[in-house]
Amino acid sequence: MPLVLRDDEIRLALTMADAVGAIEDACREQAAGTAIAVERRVMWLPNGWMRLMPGALVGSGVMGYKAFHRTGASVRYAVHLFDYASGEAIAIIDGWYVTAVRTGAAAGVAVKHLAPAAAASLGVIGSGAEARTQVEAVGAVRPLRRAKVYSRDPRRRERFAREMSEHLGVEFQAVDQPEKAIDGVEILVAATNTGGTGPALFGRWLHKGLHVNSIGSTLKDQREIDPAVWAFADRIVIDSRHVLDESGNGIAAREANAIDEGKVAELHEVVAGTRPGRTGADQMTLYKSVGLGLHDVAVAFRIYRQARARGLGRHVEDFQAVVPASG
Amino acid sequence: MPLVLRDDEIRLALTMADAVGAIEDACREQAAGTAIAVERRVMWLPNGWMRLMPGALVGSGVMGYKAFHRTGASVRYAVHLFDYASGEAIAIIDGWYVTAVRTGAAAGVAVKHLAPAAAASLGVIGSGAEARTQVEAVGAVRPLRRAKVYSRDPRRRERFAREMSEHLGVEFQAVDQPEKAIDGVEILVAATNTGGTGPALFGRWLHKGLHVNSIGSTLKDQREIDPAVWAFADRIVIDSRHVLDESGNGIAAREANAIDEGKVAELHEVVAGTRPGRTGADQMTLYKSVGLGLHDVAVAFRIYRQARARGLGRHVEDFQAVVPASG
Repeated sequence: MPLVLRDDEIRLALTMADAVGAIEDACREQAAGTAIAVERRVMWLPNGWMRLMPGALVGSGVMGYKAFHRTGASVRYAVHLFDYASGEAIAIIDGWYVTAVRTGAAAGVAVKHLAPAAAASLGVIGSGAEARTQVEAVGAVRPLRRAKVYSRDPRRRERFAREMSEHLGVEFQAVDQPEKAIDGVEILVAATNTGGTGPALFGRWLHKGLHVNSIGSTLKDQREIDPAVWAFADRIVIDSRHVLDESGNGIAAREANAIDEGKVAELHEVVAGTRPGRTGADQMTLYKSVGLGLHDVAVAFRIYRQARARGLGRHVEDFQAVVPASG
Repeated sequence: MPLVLRDDEIRLALTMADAVGAIEDACREQAAGTAIAVERRVMWLPNGWMRLMPGALVGSGVMGYKAFHRTGASVRYAVHLFDYASGEAIAIIDGWYVTAVRTGAAAGVAVKHLAPAAAASLGVIGSGAEARTQVEAVGAVRPLRRAKVYSRDPRRRERFAREMSEHLGVEFQAVDQPEKAIDGVEILVAATNTGGTGPALFGRWLHKGLHVNSIGSTLKDQREIDPAVWAFADRIVIDSRHVLDESGNGIAAREANAIDEGKVAELHEVVAGTRPGRTGADQMTLYKSVGLGLHDVAVAFRIYRQARARGLGRHVEDFQAVVPASG
């Protein structure tokens, strides 16, 4: 009898710190070999796409997938969870906030392990829902004191600065050029929806000592950062090896020969300490993600457990289990 | 507000003739270029697997996917449908009978277009649920007069013969060797669960004029027919090009150089008449399937429409549509 959870219930059930914890636990399972992450399947449609992203945390006893599709301008998301041992459906969870929060939380884990330990200043490029969860995640792992935001639309960046100042209790300044958001900060978040318009972040704008999260290119036709960002980085950490094939960023950077493979590690390797993260204060570190079904499953499972403990959601019927007969 | 349909409701809502019609319509959409079929994603697990199979019928206005997973011996299936134009979830349907009936119906379409027009005799190897739907499908497209069944377990083949005799009104004989099920028949159905035990059907057992459906090898480690079956065939029709990569049958036949690519067509090409099917009474024709998400969507959509017309099922809440903000 799966538990169905709506967006409002999900937000009640989970804090960003919970989500960061869920992603760190998933990274440790990956490093221990009890997590399974496979490539997503994308079906392109004349008016959008459908994507299916499976993942399993065998150690935690859960498996599932996220299914989401874009039709025209709007997207619908759902995460389906199953008990690993019995196969029973345990939850059907609206996947919109899960997506934003798990992307933010994974980036928060990256900041925790890659940004300078005393980093307290943040620059943000972008002002959408993903930018919000990125900022929340950074706030969950570093004691922020000041922050700046650039977005093309003046009203949107002003509103973002105002709302995030209140939300995090940090002074947030809206700036009218992306370079101003970067100047002097220790952590930079790029969370843009570039579509086909080309990079929103250029390597020549960056300085050493900075940690950069880039999450805005998850498809081949999207480019958020230019190849020089990759070339300038001393360490490159990715959520999955598929970054280099699935993201327009990764593809363009590879074509430009801007990626030194020796600098590249997966997030779980850095969390588990099997590959180095930042090894010096004068390094620029880059975290780039395309999104892992495994992270959706990890965060959705945390939501499910906490929602159940709080009596949230409604149960719907499960389908039968069948034992296919032998011929 | 998607409609949830259980197994008992699905069986009330759909006849095999309906399913054959749904698959033929899907084939015509494929031939017209308005259907989208993409490769399934398989996630292997220590105690089973999860498979995700998307498909869309843009002309019919529906898209969706089947998700199913094996844990230990049991499998759970669900088909999720969405309105193509709006993206709204319209149905969540137990996928077990859908799988069996769409596999049967696609094979029925193959028999309709490939078996001799006057074929009235059937041999069956296998006695499981898939064998049943295969026989029903053949009965829906040809006026059967006599049939034989072989299965390793004497009790299972006797029961199958008894039940299918009653169900179809055709004399069904249980035989104690696979060759006896093949001898003298015009249509042969192989629907076995061979696991890793190797082929259940050998080319040396076959005769010209025969049409063969083989559905029992959908994974790399499964083999239902030996390479000589492929070599003996004059025409080879497949549900999807992935047969040759995903099925242990196809892989073994390719390695043995038993497949003349010039003989191979996809089912929709034969239905639409863009590639030839049977062109002579003395030909052996072979239909081999691995299963298409598109066929699941096509049959599930027919079930959904007919169930709704009959007032079956229950509605559950849909999740929100969101418009991802640009940065």
